[in-house]
Amino acid sequence: MNQHIEEFTTLHKQLINQCLPGNSIDCVIFGFDNHQLKVLLLQWKHEKVWSLPGGFIDKNDDMDKAAYRVLQERTGLKSIFLNQFYTFGGKERSQVNGVTQARRIEKFLKEFKNVNQDLTNWLKQRFITTGYFALVDINKAKPRPDFLSEKCEWKSIRNLPKLMMDHRKIIQKALDHLRIQLNYLPIGINLLPQKFTMQDLQQLYEAILRVPLERSNFQRKILKLGILIRLEKQMTGAANKAPYLYKFDKAKYRILIEKGIGFVS
Amino acid sequence: MNQHIEEFTTLHKQLINQCLPGNSIDCVIFGFDNHQLKVLLLQWKHEKVWSLPGGFIDKNDDMDKAAYRVLQERTGLKSIFLNQFYTFGGKERSQVNGVTQARRIEKFLKEFKNVNQDLTNWLKQRFITTGYFALVDINKAKPRPDFLSEKCEWKSIRNLPKLMMDHRKIIQKALDHLRIQLNYLPIGINLLPQKFTMQDLQQLYEAILRVPLERSNFQRKILKLGILIRLEKQMTGAANKAPYLYKFDKAKYRILIEKGIGFVS
Repeated sequence: MNQHIEEFTTLHKQLINQCLPGNSIDCVIFGFDNHQLKVLLLQWKHEKVWSLPGGFIDKNDDMDKAAYRVLQERTGLKSIFLNQFYTFGGKERSQVNGVTQARRIEKFLKEFKNVNQDLTNWLKQRFITTGYFALVDINKAKPRPDFLSEKCEWKSIRNLPKLMMDHRKIIQKALDHLRIQLNYLPIGINLLPQKFTMQDLQQLYEAILRVPLERSNFQRKILKLGILIRLEKQMTGAANKAPYLYKFDKAKYRILIEKGIGFVS
Repeated sequence: MNQHIEEFTTLHKQLINQCLPGNSIDCVIFGFDNHQLKVLLLQWKHEKVWSLPGGFIDKNDDMDKAAYRVLQERTGLKSIFLNQFYTFGGKERSQVNGVTQARRIEKFLKEFKNVNQDLTNWLKQRFITTGYFALVDINKAKPRPDFLSEKCEWKSIRNLPKLMMDHRKIIQKALDHLRIQLNYLPIGINLLPQKFTMQDLQQLYEAILRVPLERSNFQRKILKLGILIRLEKQMTGAANKAPYLYKFDKAKYRILIEKGIGFVS
């Protein structure tokens, strides 16, 4: 328990003196694995409830820096683009299913000794949180719990566990933004392996959009973007049925990320 | 000056006791007039500098409510949709062109008597601001300055005056989001008169995108959306050259707002 006391004392000083009051960030980190879209979640110590990886903002840092720090600390990944997608400022956002976050924090902190009341009060204040999402390669990420949690795991978005506060809504909103992005930005780098079939790419779109897409229409529209390079056939069975493998033309992909898939221009 | 003292006392109590510390909202209110995209700005009393209409968040209110209140107070308009588009959390955001907002506030408040130091300190703290944008009918809006400003006017986005803090960047970011929205959402209701020509609509797109569009290609893509109803010709000159007038099919427009202009689905 000594380690905990020390960690809490450090945490206490960091939060009260070093962080902006009432502001936090939450990261929705998506990965694609086994045809499923997954999200990285933490399970708090002594609790059954899960949460998004999140953090507070140092008074001397940009808000973005807090988000990148969380992404890196929880996954070990650097140089991944984070999309700021929405800020959650509802007054009731800490109260979900009748359990207020304030009560959860009090109960949670009681499990530890020597927790300063200032720290409890600081954590109990009303927070406005800014959501960021990232698309990462699930095979390269090394999930690590933070000090308050004991598990850090990938969970399918189709089967999410019980989440604290408004974190389910935050994931939903991140998905909405990801779906909207499909209309004007290419997707796939980081989420798919380096070589993939047209079906793999279609399944990624379908997992995000949650609707089945018509195969030939999808193929025509994707090929028209000019970001795919066709490679050899994937030899697993009969040669005549083997699908082609593709990889992204990274230069063209990057240009399309910059200029977008324009509707009129 | 008595009125000012009273107003400042009220403001002081409201801010320190009633509002969340370190959080604000800013509204980028767009209108379209004389083929130009315009934005509503305020000019502070005793200052040459302009700012976006903005405000603070009541401890007992949702953040969105603060934004809707500002929109209504500055324009008289209700029931206009506000798009939350980005949250500005840079640590240097209050320092632009060497003038810190803290110094500006100190100088500004010195012009008034009986200003409490607590109020000055509260206003000088680091703020994270959430930006909202709205598209309004410039003919229906009735611009009104707030208590701290003496002018509230429409300014062309092509010729913006000197703006405080990072407000130029906030307008730029709102424009970026508006441009992205053109790729998956229809636009025009509120911004155009009830009846308009295809050229009017194209000029609106061009004002936002800041690129000239090819006439027949634009017309084909817009008509394909199925949201326009063709009306009589606009009779101003020779009948054979008169352009058709259009109006929006509001039901179909609303459906497209809901489902978006899908790229693959």
